[in-house]
Amino acid sequence: MSTTDTTTSAQDTVSSGETQPAGHHGGHGYNSDKPKYLARLKRIEGQTRGIHRMIDADEYCIDILTQISAINSALENVALALLEDHLNHCVASAAEEGGPVAEEKLAEAAKAIRRMVKS
Amino acid sequence: MSTTDTTTSAQDTVSSGETQPAGHHGGHGYNSDKPKYLARLKRIEGQTRGIHRMIDADEYCIDILTQISAINSALENVALALLEDHLNHCVASAAEEGGPVAEEKLAEAAKAIRRMVKS
Amino acid sequence: MSTTDTTTSAQDTVSSGETQPAGHHGGHGYNSDKPKYLARLKRIEGQTRGIHRMIDADEYCIDILTQISAINSALENVALALLEDHLNHCVASAAEEGGPVAEEKLAEAAKAIRRMVKS
Amino acid sequence: MSTTDTTTSAQDTVSSGETQPAGHHGGHGYNSDKPKYLARLKRIEGQTRGIHRMIDADEYCIDILTQISAINSALENVALALLEDHLNHCVASAAEEGGPVAEEKLAEAAKAIRRMVKS
Repeated sequence: MSTTDTTTSAQDTVSSGETQPAGHHGGHGYNSDKPKYLARLKRIEGQTRGIHRMIDADEYCIDILTQISAINSALENVALALLEDHLNHCVASAAEEGGPVAEEKLAEAAKAIRRMVKS
Repeated sequence: MSTTDTTTSAQDTVSSGETQPAGHHGGHGYNSDKPKYLARLKRIEGQTRGIHRMIDADEYCIDILTQISAINSALENVALALLEDHLNHCVASAAEEGGPVAEEKLAEAAKAIRRMVKS
Repeated sequence: MSTTDTTTSAQDTVSSGETQPAGHHGGHGYNSDKPKYLARLKRIEGQTRGIHRMIDADEYCIDILTQISAINSALENVALALLEDHLNHCVASAAEEGGPVAEEKLAEAAKAIRRMVKS
Repeated sequence: MSTTDTTTSAQDTVSSGETQPAGHHGGHGYNSDKPKYLARLKRIEGQTRGIHRMIDADEYCIDILTQISAINSALENVALALLEDHLNHCVASAAEEGGPVAEEKLAEAAKAIRRMVKS
């Protein structure tokens, strides 16, 4: 991925980073690894831009498919890591408390897993 | 997705568009639909940037997972459309000619399908 | 699926049902729905036998693929239902207790989810 | 898998094997490998029966999920092999002839691939 990519990407997101209120939603499972997640998404965004360029440059279809499979796999890994963090934090603390909130969190997680498996 | 996105994205790819020799690789299956593919990729790139913003803004994990499933599905649809175009054009014409080239094209397509199914 | 199937299948499993010690492992999440799960598996087994017959009878490849997709989907639904029961029971009670057992259960569930998403 | 399985399974299919007219549908791509496919399906059927037994014996949920993932993977591999044989034989010969039959075969294969990727 070119230098232009990185520059453009950094610019895209700097504003949201600045307006983010400190400490807000501090309980999310993924928060401790936030920089790592952001870097992974940046890379995936660059890979997506790469597919755009490959099509624009009339590259060979099979090579484009290989790249798309790589992006799908990278996105799945991000989703699985987010889900794991979510189970370990939000769902686990809801389960500790029990009651309808715990049930709701579990049902919600189950639906997300279903979408991931079925897509 | 914001206006900034679109502007930035257009800028990213304009150079490759200009340097593309006219009529080069004209035989690719996806060529007739190229603008449609490019638009789809642009949208997916915007969605990926959206995930980045959601994580940066500490949004709720399950909502992020829903978005990732949507991107995965969109990418799969692009891959399936590209593969279909590839089968209808490159593979079909190779098969018409027969011989080792046809075999190679078929083996290559089979490998791409395997990656798509297994990822 | 023919009558022979059902007869054979019932015979296959009757012994394990009889030797099953009453009340053993009563805490499994899927236990309350056990007859439903067993019936679903019986049906999937019959569908698998159906594929065998289709190949043996030289049926059309695409029709066989359609059947295999149906079985895969049915198996995925069983797996998702089992996982949901597992999260709601075993994982939820482990999380209530907390400590290393909870962590282990969560890590184990995450691995199972990964296998389901990646396969 | 127990001896009973094998015996029962062999019995299930022997009749269809006998009534199969010799040389019928000889053009299917998978025909040369038929015994291999039949053996693979037999094994998958046994694995499905294994899941039934595991549930009946109240085995641990995660172990059942592991087995289901293994069956799904085995079924996917059979489907991919059948598809590859189909592309190499039926679709390739249709493409050689060209015309509406070729188009139909290609559209049909594309739909089967879509089902496999999306399920």
